[in-house]
Amino acid sequence: METPDIMTHLSSFRLTIDNIDAALIHMFAERFRCTDQVGFLKAEHHLPAVDEAREQHQYDRLKKLAEGAGLDPIFIEKLMQFVISEVVKRHRQIAAAHESGNAEHFPTANGS
Amino acid sequence: METPDIMTHLSSFRLTIDNIDAALIHMFAERFRCTDQVGFLKAEHHLPAVDEAREQHQYDRLKKLAEGAGLDPIFIEKLMQFVISEVVKRHRQIAAAHESGNAEHFPTANGS
Repeated sequence: METPDIMTHLSSFRLTIDNIDAALIHMFAERFRCTDQVGFLKAEHHLPAVDEAREQHQYDRLKKLAEGAGLDPIFIEKLMQFVISEVVKRHRQIAAAHESGNAEHFPTANGS
Repeated sequence: METPDIMTHLSSFRLTIDNIDAALIHMFAERFRCTDQVGFLKAEHHLPAVDEAREQHQYDRLKKLAEGAGLDPIFIEKLMQFVISEVVKRHRQIAAAHESGNAEHFPTANGS
């Protein structure tokens, strides 16, 4: 009767993983809602989409947090590079929409 | 006196983003802690590292959650593909460590 027991354990772990994923998605939604606000602020005041000093500070901090949590800091850096490149892309789109007078119609996370 | 006001707004947004990032890192640490347990279970019972049906179910669910939260589902799918490929890599490492009798020395998130 080993197999049903394994499947019960596996299903239980997977329920936890699915719950964590739902939390991650909503955390990312809030992150993009916030970075979009930064994008609108930058567009309004003609600040550049990329801030290299800020990005470097973020990566240094994230890698330290990753190490403290027992995660591979290189993996976390690559993951966050992917996220931050999406943020920069959105900042450029927001700036372009602002230039053309359509910033208020830019679709943001949660439809806000 | 426009510039100090912008910088105050920007700093406030960035504090929120940094707090969200700390939460994300710890959520990912918990996710890997959980997926590592799945890896140990699979290794013990000689189950394959990849479960295509489970992965497809995850991507379908994640894309729906992303849409509901106003996020680009394609972006979220790519992000989670990166995460899940790391999970599969760790499952293979856990299986190899189990085969060689060193599974208990596998370094997991949070050192557990």
